[in-house]
Amino acid sequence: MQFNENLNRLKTYEPGKDIELIAKEYGVKEVIKLASNENPLGTSQKAREAIIQNASKAYLYPDDSASELRNALALKFGLKMQNVIIGAGSDQIIELATHAKLNHQNAFLQCGVSFAMYEIYAKQVGAKAYKTRSITHDLNEFKSLYEMYKDEIKILYLCLPNNPLGECLNAFDVEEFLKDLDEDCLVVIDAAYNEFASFKDEKKHINPAKFIEKFPNLLYLGTFSKLYGLGGLRVGYGVANEDLIDALYKLRAPFNVNILALKAAVAALDDEEFVKSSLENNFSQMQKFEDFARFNAIEFIPSYTNFITYFFEEQNSSNLSEKLLKKGIIVRDLKSYGLNAMRITIGKPYENTRFFEEFEDILKKN
Amino acid sequence: MQFNENLNRLKTYEPGKDIELIAKEYGVKEVIKLASNENPLGTSQKAREAIIQNASKAYLYPDDSASELRNALALKFGLKMQNVIIGAGSDQIIELATHAKLNHQNAFLQCGVSFAMYEIYAKQVGAKAYKTRSITHDLNEFKSLYEMYKDEIKILYLCLPNNPLGECLNAFDVEEFLKDLDEDCLVVIDAAYNEFASFKDEKKHINPAKFIEKFPNLLYLGTFSKLYGLGGLRVGYGVANEDLIDALYKLRAPFNVNILALKAAVAALDDEEFVKSSLENNFSQMQKFEDFARFNAIEFIPSYTNFITYFFEEQNSSNLSEKLLKKGIIVRDLKSYGLNAMRITIGKPYENTRFFEEFEDILKKN
Repeated sequence: MQFNENLNRLKTYEPGKDIELIAKEYGVKEVIKLASNENPLGTSQKAREAIIQNASKAYLYPDDSASELRNALALKFGLKMQNVIIGAGSDQIIELATHAKLNHQNAFLQCGVSFAMYEIYAKQVGAKAYKTRSITHDLNEFKSLYEMYKDEIKILYLCLPNNPLGECLNAFDVEEFLKDLDEDCLVVIDAAYNEFASFKDEKKHINPAKFIEKFPNLLYLGTFSKLYGLGGLRVGYGVANEDLIDALYKLRAPFNVNILALKAAVAALDDEEFVKSSLENNFSQMQKFEDFARFNAIEFIPSYTNFITYFFEEQNSSNLSEKLLKKGIIVRDLKSYGLNAMRITIGKPYENTRFFEEFEDILKKN
Repeated sequence: MQFNENLNRLKTYEPGKDIELIAKEYGVKEVIKLASNENPLGTSQKAREAIIQNASKAYLYPDDSASELRNALALKFGLKMQNVIIGAGSDQIIELATHAKLNHQNAFLQCGVSFAMYEIYAKQVGAKAYKTRSITHDLNEFKSLYEMYKDEIKILYLCLPNNPLGECLNAFDVEEFLKDLDEDCLVVIDAAYNEFASFKDEKKHINPAKFIEKFPNLLYLGTFSKLYGLGGLRVGYGVANEDLIDALYKLRAPFNVNILALKAAVAALDDEEFVKSSLENNFSQMQKFEDFARFNAIEFIPSYTNFITYFFEEQNSSNLSEKLLKKGIIVRDLKSYGLNAMRITIGKPYENTRFFEEFEDILKKN
């Protein structure tokens, strides 16, 4: 059977490995997963209760308008429900944005290394990728590339802070930069980890209401998968002006987010205690990852997220990741991003301690 | 901002109305929803337990390979895991099939009135729709249309039994018909309601293992949204030969089905008691809907599903549906399908009784 030609150019996303599968494969009892930037404190109590309370509603199709969650987010941001779209993960909003703007005749722009799904979705529609030479965000490079390929570039991605590298631009600089872009260029600010960045340094905070008011071509993305501890439920959102949200809704399949996910997200949004503990644990533990790196002469970029990326020179990151895996510790090797590096999610104190012990051991023997 | 031109030709699916929203809007205390073909017996006990047991895992990304559920389905059908793909509803498999085969230069074929998503997804990629003049499945008409537009038709949909009309072809006739099709034409058998049809009459039973063995160009679709009582969780599946499944997997976004949905589906598949009660309730209650129709001189097609479709002559189906809505009863008006008809889900005995009482009242006053 013949398929559409776009199937030939597709890359597949390489997801973090599953705990249960790794435990089976390597015969390890306790697997520690520091690979997918899930919240190490688990699922918030309020979200868990919402799931249990609504379990018997699983037979009912969800409210397709997702009005409860959209209203809750609108309230949080000081916007209207019409400014919010819900996706099965913010990935799905990236997919919708791609389908709305990109095709085989145009292109998108991102920094050298960023979230892989931007390119994967763009390839599905045959659009071209422009990337800055700098692996992290360099606005001067963005500016000159944009000027050069202005007519082609229909989506510009800023990942703030950047996954999988961890650095983050200042909101003020982003605002200045955006002023010079054409209104027909959709700017996507992927803020999946922005709550972490804002906690560490308020200059990194992207206020969606303020940004979409100033820039009608801006789409802000948020997620419940990271800080809000609902990675397994697949809930993300986009915030933009009404016309843009309407266009994305046209492309969305009905019932794209399930009923328990919607209920859990509303509850998680309300669990301030959980959010606070998660942020505090993250940055107090981050310190230990920085200390460990310095002590072992490992290069790293100061991180504004819930992960840290270690860069290697002589050692091979795939090799090191594989050795960790055999000990039951899953991290994310970044070879598929073209880097000799690994991304490690900041875990709970005892998980991190085990990581440090095992990894030091591996480094010594290497 | 300009969008891709496909946005202009898009139709949006009109979902069944949500219970909570209707209750609010019409100030009705008990809303009865007979609109979305959900299982009136609710969520199976086993699935509910699986959800509750796994609620604390909501922070973890799901196993992206969905191996537990794929293996369970493979076992049920006597196939391999590699023959199965999981989607966020069988809708999502329709979307993947569309993206794999259709584009603005080709077409799909379906009967006159069938599941709306076939056309909605096809329009997103600019493909043409061919439909038989008969609103229900007529294989002779399928054959002659196919012969006429063979070079263009790259997907042929058979909805067995047909949503939203309820009729069903015999498996034997389908098999004979498929023998004459070109191997490059993807045949999608949408079996979302086939368990109901098989229970009523085993000649309607589509055995996926047997069909995919005979027809390498065949994709069988099943769902957990109807008989298995998990409409709110969005889990469906496709069964086909490995090459075809591989192609669909290339187009799938990672983590497309959430962790609680995967766990609940595995449990639901195992709840034979629940499945049996659901089928029995459905067809004993179906009898009452047929009696009601005959008594009130309403036309209907004998249904092989968990719904029945009433056709009207003098009365207007939208008008009637609206009157029911005001009494707190949600049914599906089929005006958007070009029919003066309504589709009613077979509910629990007391729900159906209330429907009969209220509807008789409305008919009398009309």
